[in-house]
Amino acid sequence: MNSFGRIFRISIFGESHGALVGICIDGCRQGIKLCENDFLHDIQRRKSGKQGTTLRIESDTPQIVSGVFNGFTTGSPITILFKNQNINSEDYLQFKTQPRPNHADFVAMKKFYGFNDYRGSGHFSGRLTLPLVAAGVIAKKNIPEININAKIIKVGGETDIDKTVESAISNGDSLGGIIECVAKNIPVGLGEPFFDSVESQIAHLAFSIPAIKGIEFGAGFSSANMRGSEHNDIIINEHGKTATNNAGGVVGGITNGNDLIFRVAVKPTSSIMKNQQTFDFENQKISDLKIHGRHDACIALRIPVIIEAITAIALADFILLKR
Amino acid sequence: MNSFGRIFRISIFGESHGALVGICIDGCRQGIKLCENDFLHDIQRRKSGKQGTTLRIESDTPQIVSGVFNGFTTGSPITILFKNQNINSEDYLQFKTQPRPNHADFVAMKKFYGFNDYRGSGHFSGRLTLPLVAAGVIAKKNIPEININAKIIKVGGETDIDKTVESAISNGDSLGGIIECVAKNIPVGLGEPFFDSVESQIAHLAFSIPAIKGIEFGAGFSSANMRGSEHNDIIINEHGKTATNNAGGVVGGITNGNDLIFRVAVKPTSSIMKNQQTFDFENQKISDLKIHGRHDACIALRIPVIIEAITAIALADFILLKR
Amino acid sequence: MNSFGRIFRISIFGESHGALVGICIDGCRQGIKLCENDFLHDIQRRKSGKQGTTLRIESDTPQIVSGVFNGFTTGSPITILFKNQNINSEDYLQFKTQPRPNHADFVAMKKFYGFNDYRGSGHFSGRLTLPLVAAGVIAKKNIPEININAKIIKVGGETDIDKTVESAISNGDSLGGIIECVAKNIPVGLGEPFFDSVESQIAHLAFSIPAIKGIEFGAGFSSANMRGSEHNDIIINEHGKTATNNAGGVVGGITNGNDLIFRVAVKPTSSIMKNQQTFDFENQKISDLKIHGRHDACIALRIPVIIEAITAIALADFILLKR
Amino acid sequence: MNSFGRIFRISIFGESHGALVGICIDGCRQGIKLCENDFLHDIQRRKSGKQGTTLRIESDTPQIVSGVFNGFTTGSPITILFKNQNINSEDYLQFKTQPRPNHADFVAMKKFYGFNDYRGSGHFSGRLTLPLVAAGVIAKKNIPEININAKIIKVGGETDIDKTVESAISNGDSLGGIIECVAKNIPVGLGEPFFDSVESQIAHLAFSIPAIKGIEFGAGFSSANMRGSEHNDIIINEHGKTATNNAGGVVGGITNGNDLIFRVAVKPTSSIMKNQQTFDFENQKISDLKIHGRHDACIALRIPVIIEAITAIALADFILLKR
Repeated sequence: MNSFGRIFRISIFGESHGALVGICIDGCRQGIKLCENDFLHDIQRRKSGKQGTTLRIESDTPQIVSGVFNGFTTGSPITILFKNQNINSEDYLQFKTQPRPNHADFVAMKKFYGFNDYRGSGHFSGRLTLPLVAAGVIAKKNIPEININAKIIKVGGETDIDKTVESAISNGDSLGGIIECVAKNIPVGLGEPFFDSVESQIAHLAFSIPAIKGIEFGAGFSSANMRGSEHNDIIINEHGKTATNNAGGVVGGITNGNDLIFRVAVKPTSSIMKNQQTFDFENQKISDLKIHGRHDACIALRIPVIIEAITAIALADFILLKR
Repeated sequence: MNSFGRIFRISIFGESHGALVGICIDGCRQGIKLCENDFLHDIQRRKSGKQGTTLRIESDTPQIVSGVFNGFTTGSPITILFKNQNINSEDYLQFKTQPRPNHADFVAMKKFYGFNDYRGSGHFSGRLTLPLVAAGVIAKKNIPEININAKIIKVGGETDIDKTVESAISNGDSLGGIIECVAKNIPVGLGEPFFDSVESQIAHLAFSIPAIKGIEFGAGFSSANMRGSEHNDIIINEHGKTATNNAGGVVGGITNGNDLIFRVAVKPTSSIMKNQQTFDFENQKISDLKIHGRHDACIALRIPVIIEAITAIALADFILLKR
Repeated sequence: MNSFGRIFRISIFGESHGALVGICIDGCRQGIKLCENDFLHDIQRRKSGKQGTTLRIESDTPQIVSGVFNGFTTGSPITILFKNQNINSEDYLQFKTQPRPNHADFVAMKKFYGFNDYRGSGHFSGRLTLPLVAAGVIAKKNIPEININAKIIKVGGETDIDKTVESAISNGDSLGGIIECVAKNIPVGLGEPFFDSVESQIAHLAFSIPAIKGIEFGAGFSSANMRGSEHNDIIINEHGKTATNNAGGVVGGITNGNDLIFRVAVKPTSSIMKNQQTFDFENQKISDLKIHGRHDACIALRIPVIIEAITAIALADFILLKR
Repeated sequence: MNSFGRIFRISIFGESHGALVGICIDGCRQGIKLCENDFLHDIQRRKSGKQGTTLRIESDTPQIVSGVFNGFTTGSPITILFKNQNINSEDYLQFKTQPRPNHADFVAMKKFYGFNDYRGSGHFSGRLTLPLVAAGVIAKKNIPEININAKIIKVGGETDIDKTVESAISNGDSLGGIIECVAKNIPVGLGEPFFDSVESQIAHLAFSIPAIKGIEFGAGFSSANMRGSEHNDIIINEHGKTATNNAGGVVGGITNGNDLIFRVAVKPTSSIMKNQQTFDFENQKISDLKIHGRHDACIALRIPVIIEAITAIALADFILLKR
């Protein structure tokens, strides 16, 4: 359940305030040059510290502890660990009795009968996306011919992102956003009609990222408002290039050689400075909840590189399967 | 690749114009009353023949050929077959050289090096959703306590569906639509944080259905426009009931006991009566394409029962896993 | 649970006295010439009718109902069905209360709470090996470069097989046997160190065949009696050829380019003409059991082609994975 | 490929002379008391240092780095790491050109195109069985009602084990052995007819252990020499207890409530002090090979606890699946 993939397979583990978070990657091909510095660029992109993101800054130093020898991947499982350091766990005890709205506090407590590590959301934490980003770096190296680029296109419904974030912060509130991902130079023929369509695999991984509440490919939800004569993408050459790309590069579950394009919806960060209410399990009544501490006003700002990572992971799996 | 599930597992096979389409269901528990008539209601809901759907009517008669004995499931794999009958394959030869826009013609030819059964889109056909509906019926019987209901809420952007469909037909055009699915009486605790979130599994299956181009849970894409203070669902009692349901019943990938709610976007049927253009591989140039025959002007009209089926399949798998 | 494989995947279904038995094969590559006659040779080798095998002769006619078009595999799932015909189910009712020793009667009843199809052992029947043989034929066509040959080398501890079988039949008794399988022209490098060693996958499949109780590779159990200096296979050329083959062609879980050699032990047929005893669940005491009907005195005689089939299935999966 | 299991799932990683070896266990239920000391007893049983085992002694200290909180399992993946310490890697360089007979040197080099970590056999090392033992400890805690006991019953064909080992050591040679495992208090009904028979799953795991070359259940290879009237186990009470146990507790792939009994054959350690020959890839001719260093004269002596571990892992998976 904490694993994904058919050829390029990842297994994720760790808790936000435990010893570490990590990932084990099986099925990466041998002979790829890899060192710890290779992760730094994408890790940096995920980091907080910018406006609208939390001030709790971790060092996020990757350690490769298996699967790499003399600077190259060996073909054996690659394990990457990130020790946890900047931990302040006292904050979290109150949420056992006062579960935060739209956080996993309540469901985790119920699912694991109270044995879950509740500190910093434990295994449910967004910190688990750090090893995902590391796996994404390795996936990208397995498919160097593919160019993947994700960026935030809207925050709180607005395109003037800085101003919108500033306003939310000043109100002690948080914001959602839309991220668009484009992958170029995709071969024709990746994916399966049932059940491993390209959309299925990417959506499966995207919804593993905390805070994602929607995904659409190509024209997506707009397709539902279109007529076939508007929506259909005319094929214009022998490589399958189309005049428009309403399909987002996937037809019948299979890549058609055009750019793969999709968008995800990120909900506003659930932790807000503003007063809220929730059920208090100790006193058995609804009561006020005040969340202290340092949180991202707009977690969407940190997610583009994670979206790239899961796209690379899905595509690496498809491409290794096809080879 | 044509299989899905961990405990309740389905394998799909067959081609639109081959001998049959079918499904094999492994992991269904023993002792469930099951006969062929049990499928008829949901099969009827998927049928064409209504306004806006194709006139090519199949008998769609299910045959249970394994896994049922003396009227009860045995615990062994259940196989259900549907013979193909109303077949007219001559229509399809032209699409080998003139691939239809947004159909799988081009990608299937490339992926399978021309060996694919191109007749009626072969294994890519929407006809494969018929066995999916049958599996959905069995899934529903595994989780009788859950109530699942999907319905079309918009067609071509409009809520006056009959009128909109009529107008598209008169123009030889087609329409997309939005389907909403609500599942009630869901226990708390289904799903996993990574990677088998409830959203991941449902999205995976939803994108296996031809024509689905987007999915969103709860407030979905609207979340991206909201502030945290608007989006957060206040927990109001000890069962985890929330005042609003912007989460769509899933938090941290796990069901929270509220209604599971999601919507999918269905693209307009790719086959339209209107003239179109596509690349002609024989003459190596863009040329006119005229699609004859009988097609659904709005395939979305037939999809609600399929959405219910995949929801039931996903939930049956989660619930059997939890037990 | 009724599926196996990573790339070349099989799903088995059906009951001995139900409508049919069948198999669905996913992951077979497109473009392989395939027709129903291709199965006949191996099906014939599995057939009964020879001395020591049952007189209950089925027609065993394969029907390809999906995945083949114009005489070639399409790349979509291939489904093969075998209708059941020569059925006489009255014999089996007594075994619900008087379970036959070493048959699945007792465990099936317990496992499936009495809902299992008990007729002819239902889904537990050796008849399910018929679709396995069909899958083996297709697997062999995926790896035409590999030559697989299995034969019976001992029956009841003897090499004079005809005489031994005759003696057992005249005593109303049954016999076990040893089958040896050799696969030639195996590439170096198939298999994984953990957990998908070549031995692991072949053993996994071999123990799916009813009546197999042991498997050994190369020198196998004899290795345990040897010293390292006797057992070690000296490498004698740059292709890895070894002077001896005590490893049976697998070292560290990986093929080393020498012949793959293994042997399986087949227990004596559990159904014998002789009187036996078993617990009578109706009367709650041990009582006499007389098994009527037509049975194989030595089921091992029919198993070599099944062993070839599972070897081909395992190797096809490894080789497709490696490509 | 480095993962195994359906509910109780393990993923193994690391190299003998890399930073560490480890395992990630997914699907362990929450609320089990677990600390690092719990592993020490079984780790001690696997340790070398006794007569017939290597003098290279590792500290083998387990670190639990995820999935345990406040002394109890949380339900999230449990990761256990063992740092490597007593490393002397210079010995191994020669084996790149002079692959040791029956070691993975040659196949690893070919499979991974020379990129594998060859030091101490890298990922192929028997050291990887250390995390397996740790997973076995956790598996046992998931099924405390089952009692599993494995012991060595023969070494080099003899039962006077000390004397036999002494003689082999004095000759600079090595020995194989037979290990028998008995698991008591097994419920009726674990396992599947196809393909996940109890024998299939246990054999799959057993052949993942380096040096195992055969496995047999119950009477095993002796069954092949028996007549049905000798082999059949008479059922003597309503719980399915049998008078004899030639089936080894498994009928039709399913546990029948009697003791689960199987034996494995362990080949003699491939590294011996005696002079050997192998192909020299540098000089392209057969040449003498002298293996220095510290090795187990009889690796079988260290394997019983590993056999218990894989039995516990397989049974935990079956039992969690059944619940």
